Amino acid sequence: MQELVVKTQQRDQMVEITPHVQRVLDQASIDTGMVIVYVPHTTAGVTINENADPDVVHDTLTRLDKMVPWREPFDRHGEGNSASHVKASMMGASVTVLVQSGRLQLGRWQGIWFCEFDGPRTRSVWVSVQ
Amino acid sequence: MQELVVKTQQRDQMVEITPHVQRVLDQASIDTGMVIVYVPHTTAGVTINENADPDVVHDTLTRLDKMVPWREPFDRHGEGNSASHVKASMMGASVTVLVQSGRLQLGRWQGIWFCEFDGPRTRSVWVSVQ
Amino acid sequence: MQELVVKTQQRDQMVEITPHVQRVLDQASIDTGMVIVYVPHTTAGVTINENADPDVVHDTLTRLDKMVPWREPFDRHGEGNSASHVKASMMGASVTVLVQSGRLQLGRWQGIWFCEFDGPRTRSVWVSVQ
Repeated sequence: MQELVVKTQQRDQMVEITPHVQRVLDQASIDTGMVIVYVPHTTAGVTINENADPDVVHDTLTRLDKMVPWREPFDRHGEGNSASHVKASMMGASVTVLVQSGRLQLGRWQGIWFCEFDGPRTRSVWVSVQ
Repeated sequence: MQELVVKTQQRDQMVEITPHVQRVLDQASIDTGMVIVYVPHTTAGVTINENADPDVVHDTLTRLDKMVPWREPFDRHGEGNSASHVKASMMGASVTVLVQSGRLQLGRWQGIWFCEFDGPRTRSVWVSVQ
Repeated sequence: MQELVVKTQQRDQMVEITPHVQRVLDQASIDTGMVIVYVPHTTAGVTINENADPDVVHDTLTRLDKMVPWREPFDRHGEGNSASHVKASMMGASVTVLVQSGRLQLGRWQGIWFCEFDGPRTRSVWVSVQ
């Protein structure tokens, strides 16, 4: 299990980590199997989505923010970041990517994205080759 | 594969199952690998989120209920629990947790939560150590 | 890793692929383990949900469409399918299903569903037995 460090600059931000995950895989020198990318935080998540047009990230974060508003009148959590917790669960704490010939098997347009929902912060991402 | 039984008392309820999952892992006596926690139901799910402040659970369930209202005028499903099915898919049917030195590798504030969306019921959760 | 081909006829459509996944598992002739079902696209996903009443699928797709409207005034992505990307991340790019005695361990009402959010298209689904 290797740890990546991701620094974010905004409250909501998606950071592509595909090359870093591939680097961990390279060091493991396995041919076939899978990689688990796991986020050990409760106000951040991880997802797989398009890495070609940055506007997809903009639209995704803005749509999530509309679906899960920062404040709701019924909120009780004193830290005021309940929206971040909900978005984290909606994206999920881990993704699984298949490995063949030592390469991440991603679709042509897919990248692995760390999803910050309560930044800016310095975060950890755990990568395990199985 | 071990089966946990979870009893819920409300329509929407999150029940932390982290200690039960760790217990299954203890019995398997493996050092390194991963644990799959799988919910074999279609109106319940599983997620990883904060286990410190119970208000996070309140806010999460209330926000999900606002996003996915119990009744919609376009609903066709005769059982009337379509919202439960949607919430189950949004949280997901399984989570993957890494294992090192025989311990679940969770972040400091993370717990594993069974998510009931159509209770009260008696439910199964399957835990598999890989 | 085996590839399934799924053809869709509508913009939003859920296609059950459980029998095809079981067939891949049959060929692998393993007894115990797990199956990863992975979607290598960015406007489609995969989920586990009820396969008894087709009205659940109708209500799920209609509720997702209400939560994530096709057009939002703030959208920037030129292709105009940002909603598809968000729905794909909400459902997820993969599901993990446990295997015992060479059979997919699904709950009584569960099926594996390919989720098209930007069809009609011809899509790939990767199935890996671990």
